[in-house]
This record gives sequence, C-alpha cells and structure tokens, in this order.
Amino acid sequence: MVSAKMYELGTKKSTIRTIFEFGRKRAAEVGEENIFDFSLGNPNVPTPDFVRDAAIEILQTYEPAQVHGYTVAPGNPLVREALAQSINDRFGTHFVGKNIFVTSGAAAAITICFKALAEPGDEFITFAPYFPEYKVFVESVGATLKVVKPRPDDWQIDFDDFRKLLNDKTKAVIINSPNNPSGAVYSRETIAKLAAMLEYQFNQYGRKIFLICDEPYRELAYGVDVPWVTDFYWNTLVCYSYSKSFSLPGERIGYIVVPNAVDDFDKVFGAIAGAARVLTHVNAPSLWQLVAAKCAGQKIDISPYAHNGKLLYDGLIAAGFECVKPQGAFYLFPKALEEDDYAFCERARRYDLLLVPGADFGAPGYFRAAYCIKTETIERSLPLFKKLAEEYGV
Amino acid sequence: MVSAKMYELGTKKSTIRTIFEFGRKRAAEVGEENIFDFSLGNPNVPTPDFVRDAAIEILQTYEPAQVHGYTVAPGNPLVREALAQSINDRFGTHFVGKNIFVTSGAAAAITICFKALAEPGDEFITFAPYFPEYKVFVESVGATLKVVKPRPDDWQIDFDDFRKLLNDKTKAVIINSPNNPSGAVYSRETIAKLAAMLEYQFNQYGRKIFLICDEPYRELAYGVDVPWVTDFYWNTLVCYSYSKSFSLPGERIGYIVVPNAVDDFDKVFGAIAGAARVLTHVNAPSLWQLVAAKCAGQKIDISPYAHNGKLLYDGLIAAGFECVKPQGAFYLFPKALEEDDYAFCERARRYDLLLVPGADFGAPGYFRAAYCIKTETIERSLPLFKKLAEEYGV
Repeated sequence: MVSAKMYELGTKKSTIRTIFEFGRKRAAEVGEENIFDFSLGNPNVPTPDFVRDAAIEILQTYEPAQVHGYTVAPGNPLVREALAQSINDRFGTHFVGKNIFVTSGAAAAITICFKALAEPGDEFITFAPYFPEYKVFVESVGATLKVVKPRPDDWQIDFDDFRKLLNDKTKAVIINSPNNPSGAVYSRETIAKLAAMLEYQFNQYGRKIFLICDEPYRELAYGVDVPWVTDFYWNTLVCYSYSKSFSLPGERIGYIVVPNAVDDFDKVFGAIAGAARVLTHVNAPSLWQLVAAKCAGQKIDISPYAHNGKLLYDGLIAAGFECVKPQGAFYLFPKALEEDDYAFCERARRYDLLLVPGADFGAPGYFRAAYCIKTETIERSLPLFKKLAEEYGV
Repeated sequence: MVSAKMYELGTKKSTIRTIFEFGRKRAAEVGEENIFDFSLGNPNVPTPDFVRDAAIEILQTYEPAQVHGYTVAPGNPLVREALAQSINDRFGTHFVGKNIFVTSGAAAAITICFKALAEPGDEFITFAPYFPEYKVFVESVGATLKVVKPRPDDWQIDFDDFRKLLNDKTKAVIINSPNNPSGAVYSRETIAKLAAMLEYQFNQYGRKIFLICDEPYRELAYGVDVPWVTDFYWNTLVCYSYSKSFSLPGERIGYIVVPNAVDDFDKVFGAIAGAARVLTHVNAPSLWQLVAAKCAGQKIDISPYAHNGKLLYDGLIAAGFECVKPQGAFYLFPKALEEDDYAFCERARRYDLLLVPGADFGAPGYFRAAYCIKTETIERSLPLFKKLAEEYGV
C-alpha cells in the first residue's frame, strides 16, 4: 500500500543512528558525562554572533515581504550577486549572480546536480571513504554509484583504480574535500592529476565528464590550502553549505556554483532549475538567503576544531593507534585495532567510546571519530582509548 | 548531456510566468501604477508582528545550537507536540507529536506524501480547477494524475465524473479547499459525500484509498466553515503550510498530519520519512519550526483579503461578469467573456489587466484573478473591467 523502497529508506536504521540511540540509552543509565560520543558530525562551535546579529537586523529593519516573500527559484538576485562576489574575493574568480543557484543546503545541492544530469544508464564515480548518502541520492535519480577503492596512506586518490572505472557511461565524478570521514584535504597535485585525467577523457574520447565538488567543510582546514577546483577543470560544479562553517545545519542554506565554462551552461542551469522544482525545493529559505549574503566571506574561528583534532590525534598516536594526520573537516579516520571494524567498534563501546565503523564509508578496517564535541570529553576519553589499545596488546 | 525532462521542467515557461514577465516589461514602459497584475498568488498582507517578534526572541534568548542544529527528520519533538496541540485546540482532535511530520512548506508536504505512497501503475485523482503543479509532482513520482471535470455552478465536486475515475489503481485523492484557483470551500455535504464514496470503495472492494488534503489556505475563509477532514474519513493525510496564513512563503515551513487511523500508520510514516530523505528535505528549517510552534493557532487578520475579495467580486458582477461568490483563499474564478479563455486574457491585457486563463487549471472558459494585491489597484481596475465587458457587448 506504500512504496516499499521509501519505507525501507525511511526506516532502516543507519549504523550511526543505531550508535547514537545506544548512546542516548547509556547516557540515561550512567550519566551524560560518562558517554564519549564520537559518532555525529554535528558542529559544536556555536553559530557566530555576526550571523545571529545579521538575522536580527534583517528582521528588525527590512519590510516583511522583502524578507519572507517567495524568491525566484535560483535565489534572490542580490543574494546571488553577493555570493558570487564573495567567491571572487577569495579565489580570484569572475563569477556573477547567474553562476549561482541558491539551495536548501548541500544535500539538496548535490542531489539537484545528480538529478539535473542523470540520464538512464549513467554512472557516477566517487572515492572511498565517502559520505554514504551519496549512494542513496545517486540511486534515487536512477543512476549507479561506482566507488574507487581507498588509499589509506594519505586518503588521496587511487588513480589506478579510478582509471579502471571511467567509461562512456560516466556522467560525473563526485569529490568531497575536506573529506568526511577521512579528514583529508585533496592536494593541488591530486586535483591537478584528477583534472588531467578528465581532460584526457575529453580529448581522447570526447567525454565531457562533470566534476561535482561537495564542499561543506571548505573553511575547516588546518594549515593546508583547499584548492579551488574550477581553476583546474572547466566542467566543474561546486556545491556548498553554511551548515558547518556557520554552524547552521538546521536552517538548510547553501548553493551551487555553475561556471560559464561548463558544457552547455544554459542546458545545465535549466536542468538544475527543473530538478529543484520536482524535488520541491521551491526556493532556499529566504531569511537565510539574506543572512548568507550579508555574512559570506566573514572569518570564522576554527581554532576549537583545530585544538580538538590535535588533542585527539596526539592522544591516539600516543596510545598506539595509526592515523593519517587531520587536515580538515572535524573527523579522524584511524585504523581499527582488528581487521573487523564492526567488532572493534563493538569492543570500544564497552568503554562507552562511540565510534563509527569505516565499512559504512566504504573503507573497512578503519573507524571514524568526530571531534566536534567538548574538549573535556576528548581529554577524559584518552585514558579509555589507551586501555582499549592495551586490550589488543598494542 | 543533461536530463531532457529536467531541462524541460526547468525552462518551459508557465503561463503565469509569461504573464508576470509581460507585466514587468509593461510596468517599465507605462509605470507600475498603470499595471493591474492579478496573476500571482503571493500574499500581500505583511507577516504578522507576532511572528517577527517570536523569531527575534528565539534568536536573542535561545542557545544557538538549540535553534540552528539539525533536528530529527520529522521535526523537533517539542515543535511536533505544539503543532499537534494547536490542531487539537481548534478541531477537537487528539493528535500527539508522532502524528506530525514537519516539512519545508506544502509543495514538499504533498510531494512527500505522493512519493511515500506511489507504486508503479498508481493513479491519483484530483478535481478541476486544480493547482497545475499537482500534475508535475504526481508524475515526478512515477504515477498518473486523473482529473475530475469541474462543476462551474459552485466549484464543488462533480461526483458522477469522480465515480467514473475510481478504480483499483486509485492510490489517493487530492483535494484543495479553500481552493486555488476557484476560491471555493468544500462544504460539509461535499466532504461527507466524498468520504462516503471512499468508504464504499473500501467496504465493497477493499480499496484503502488515501485522501490527501492540501490546505495552505485553511485560515483564509470568509464566513464559511472549513471542515476538518480527518473527522469524515479515516485514511486522510492533511498537508499544511504557513506560507499564506503567516505570509511566510519564502521560508518554507509546513507539516503533514498522519492520524493514527490511517491504513498501516507505521508503514506510511516510515515511507514519508524515506520520501523526505530522497527529496533531500533533511529537516524543515529549524528556526521556523520553533517560530511555528510558538505562533501556531494565533489569530491572523484576514479582513484585507475579505475586503479585496468583496470589492472585486461586486465590481465584476456590476460590470456584467458571472462569478461564484468567493468563500476562501484569495482568488476569484469568473467566466471569461468568450469561449476561448486565452483569447479573452489576451484582450484583457490591452487594458493592462493581467489575468490567468482557466485552462491552465483544467477549467477552460474561465479566468483566475488573484486579489492579494493593493486595494487601490483593484479600485482603479474596475472601470477597465467595465470597458472590457462593454467591448464584448455585455
């Protein structure tokens, strides 16, 4: 009587959800302070005051219809201009309002791109470890997701495996840097090599493959440069969200950058509008469009994340874990202490350390620890990680 | 290289859009005050002060993470309780939080229901005149929309035609009362008869047909009662939006009511969650969830719409038009003065009267005039409507 597929998608509990619910139950039994929940990527740095102040000022001084009226589907024209300008100021690009499609966050942005581009039989390629919703979203538009195997020494790209997956069904390649869950930032070398391989596909076979960059963590990078990808490859769509940088995940505000250079700009932009329409994203929330325009490009303080990341990394290394040094986002992705990462995470739970198995992200044998939590919780967790490692004889 | 269907949906201009753009062009030529734009259903009564004040108070006094954090997909639990309570207070129902799924407006609410329910081969039925996006949304989930012919004497339901369309492929029936574009409010008799016919389908053939009520205009009714439909039929889903009542169309906030009585509640609610997920409605905008909870049930002033509706209705009748008296929403749906409603609207344009042909809503021979505009514009338009009627020898 209902769609079996929708029922499955709405009720099958994700591993993260199951861990989270276990945590809530344990917290009720042993107290919140005795649960070390590294499972959720929910920003814990408060929304900056300048964001709140901008929202209040808009509410107090603008005409209500200017704030709360429908905007055209791609967003308020002044907002689109402001967002383009802010990108230009930071990356030396030359975008204008018509290159921006304002969206309800990054999940909407990437899925609108998938739906706009997907034709029957299309394949999309991404790189493990990867955000598991990619598979759900790509399959929801009738396409197939192919996954390049992980490169655990630095979580950059395994180009040999990537080359094997490229074919004439490849519609687009999805990258996510800074990365959830690995914390890696793709280097200029990685992006340049990726671009060169896509160029080769075009020059050799006439394949105009799209590169979709999912960049909600762009500003969360610690001492490394996050290359601006449209500088490297012409057929690139950039998807952004203010969820992490401004700690606004509940408000659903982000955008897609559609450069003039993309193959058949008018077709792509038109199809993006059609996809937004049938996904019923009538317009991105209008107050938050105005707030984003006012605040775009303002400096945020990422030092709490940098501090937490270093603390957890140093603690895990001291306890004997192997882990690539964090470069961005707010995750560590260390090696599990036994081959079966599910079993390892089960064992960690006995210490009330809540970790997510890497297999969930397409990288078995590893685990994700989100450090967007209280510094004190991390400090108090370190002796437990040490005990856990000792159990394994590390 | 892109989805042809999405391109078509994103670029094919609707009649309303074309009229609107004509109006903008003419306004630049002859001045804003000389254009009589009755084409758009954009609320012109400002957002109530209590809504703005609630938003500011929340921003000033709550912890940012409480306001802007992700909520669970069906919405903040306290918000769901408050919305259920407000419905109970007004309609004597007994809903609780678990009966509410908070959505990004009504377009999302109805499409989430369509996607949750649709199985291959399913048919949905609605009644002309109807909101044309229903067809787009129903087809986007792989189902077919069947349309019952209009009943122009009062814009209630043509039950004989409805009966012909009911069959074992009918998954759901969609109603919209107060209605866009007719302004009709379905009477208790209409709803009772509709419910009886659906009951008969169940008793006779075991068909558990869903009734989906799209109710963004619920509070905009002038001296008539808008029946609460779950009182009449068990298998009913109610979709609501604050776009019109609180003049918040840009903010995208509404909800679905899923009564305990619906066929297989857990399956339906689970499938709704799955549909919201793949339509990438991660959660409804979180600030506006809190505002809705604070303001739900507060009285709004609909007298400007009531005044405008009476003024336009009386003026059109005096000019010789035929029109069913407005009961709700902010539209009149009079008879065109020639059979071809497109030709009629073209002719009205020569007076800079911008009207929408009824054929767009499945009711040829009529036109829609939205009266959510300045009262003065309506006053100044009446002599032009009179001249237009005189041209037709009325």
